[in-house]
Amino acid sequence: MFDERELLKMINRAFEAEPFNGQPSELYEPLNYILALGGKRIRPVMLLMVTDMYCGNLRRALPAALGIELFHNFSLIHDDIMDDAPIRRGKPTVHEKWNPNTAILSGDAMLVKAYEQFLRLPEPILKPALAIFNKTALEVCEGQQLDMNFESRTEVSIEEYLEMIRLKTAVLIGAALYLGGLTANAPESDLRNLYEFGIQNGMAFQLRDDLLDTYGDEKVFGKKQYGDISANKKSFLYLKAYELSNHESRLKLEELFTSTDIGVNEKIEETLKIFNQAEVKKHTEAIIRQHHEAAKQYFNMLTVEPARKKVLLNYSELLAGRII
Amino acid sequence: MFDERELLKMINRAFEAEPFNGQPSELYEPLNYILALGGKRIRPVMLLMVTDMYCGNLRRALPAALGIELFHNFSLIHDDIMDDAPIRRGKPTVHEKWNPNTAILSGDAMLVKAYEQFLRLPEPILKPALAIFNKTALEVCEGQQLDMNFESRTEVSIEEYLEMIRLKTAVLIGAALYLGGLTANAPESDLRNLYEFGIQNGMAFQLRDDLLDTYGDEKVFGKKQYGDISANKKSFLYLKAYELSNHESRLKLEELFTSTDIGVNEKIEETLKIFNQAEVKKHTEAIIRQHHEAAKQYFNMLTVEPARKKVLLNYSELLAGRII
Repeated sequence: MFDERELLKMINRAFEAEPFNGQPSELYEPLNYILALGGKRIRPVMLLMVTDMYCGNLRRALPAALGIELFHNFSLIHDDIMDDAPIRRGKPTVHEKWNPNTAILSGDAMLVKAYEQFLRLPEPILKPALAIFNKTALEVCEGQQLDMNFESRTEVSIEEYLEMIRLKTAVLIGAALYLGGLTANAPESDLRNLYEFGIQNGMAFQLRDDLLDTYGDEKVFGKKQYGDISANKKSFLYLKAYELSNHESRLKLEELFTSTDIGVNEKIEETLKIFNQAEVKKHTEAIIRQHHEAAKQYFNMLTVEPARKKVLLNYSELLAGRII
Repeated sequence: MFDERELLKMINRAFEAEPFNGQPSELYEPLNYILALGGKRIRPVMLLMVTDMYCGNLRRALPAALGIELFHNFSLIHDDIMDDAPIRRGKPTVHEKWNPNTAILSGDAMLVKAYEQFLRLPEPILKPALAIFNKTALEVCEGQQLDMNFESRTEVSIEEYLEMIRLKTAVLIGAALYLGGLTANAPESDLRNLYEFGIQNGMAFQLRDDLLDTYGDEKVFGKKQYGDISANKKSFLYLKAYELSNHESRLKLEELFTSTDIGVNEKIEETLKIFNQAEVKKHTEAIIRQHHEAAKQYFNMLTVEPARKKVLLNYSELLAGRII
């Protein structure tokens, strides 16, 4: 069986073997640029791990893996415009390096290029593969719209937040695992369980990301700490703290996350006080555990011999924390 | 056989029967909004006319027709952002009525919804239909990028301009005709001729649009006259006049199309002088005739009895001028 490193290499080699060299170059250069920023290629790696787990043919599955990664990068290009983000992976975002119009249009072309990959799949699985990909693509758009809506709303319920991250983050991981199974002709019930495992994994992954932003070790986490607080992001921690706080602390939280007069250090300090008061660390760990619990159940139902399950399990635990 | 009016009604009814009512509504409302702006639905009408011409099943072809129209509207939403256009069909554009972020994301969702329609096609034609749709979608992006590039360039050759309108406008009409034949199981050679007929038709259609902007009757044309001149658009007329003018007139044209100091009436008047001097009306009519000539040749090669050809021929002549 292939490990994470080998699969990552396989994916990057496939991209490098067919760089986007269409004309006009202004349209296609941003696609090569964003792919060259690298990253862990979590979704295609997991997709191929599943194919491998079912002893499927990785060559056969590769177009789906590349398609999913192209889609993910398309969504990054457009999300970065919408979020007005200047930097991604330490480099200028596409709309910064070029301009917003080029970023819109290159993103569109990248979405079409994702579909192009799917068209390379063998005919018998073309329709089911496109069906789940299409459904997922719409859901990711819905998640992004919800995320934007939440920015301008004062009150967002925990339930709404969880639905948003399910759509924005978890379903694409679910779809990747499903597609990995589909290309390997895994049984239908396994496909459903792979999908749900991916969803639970994705939820745990995102909630852990929220947690580590505030309570993580910067060196291990790899991102700048307190980014969500600095950006006034209504993360799970914020919403849980808001839910559990008294009237006074809620007003304070609202003030901290809307005022432009408060210095960033003071803001972080004051926010942490309220987070700690509400014990949000404990509560976030608890909900992550719930998703691990659910992930475990779906994982255990997969009809694969235990020895073949290890690679995928280890990798998903690396991302989402200890599952079993 | 069905006429234009009946086919238009069929298409609009199909859209009305399944309005986009997903959540969050901010994502889907713009899709209903832009479709409700109406229009002639040229591409899906022609697609269904071809299906009908080959005695094909219109129900079977309908998803392709709707998919093509959804794609066209997606491209309008994104193009309007890029062109900073405030008005479409007398109503605010999507990014004006909502905001650019919503327009980006709703456009994305509309592109995915176009693919969703294609997935409803019968399995035997799914792959070839998606193949031409995908190729065409990329080409339309390329055409839009070229169009944007031309704005900031001083010199654009006629050849480059023709390639731009082929990509931005003509290929989608070619693809629509191809798909109409594909769903009706038309012979392979007819599919190629339908595609080329559509390309030539689309070229004539766009060049005629350029011509009528300056030399058309506003009441018949339906758009405000001199729109291209006012917007400094490097239309075929501009480029042909530039090509045929002496050094002095070229400088004058460049000045007219870049200066912000010249009043719009004076600008139109001065531009018309140079256009007339270069006889661009005659030259544009000549190139339109060339495309009619080419369209006619492809049309005549279609293996359909003459009586069944009339509806499509009349309709395309309505759009692109007299072909035969």
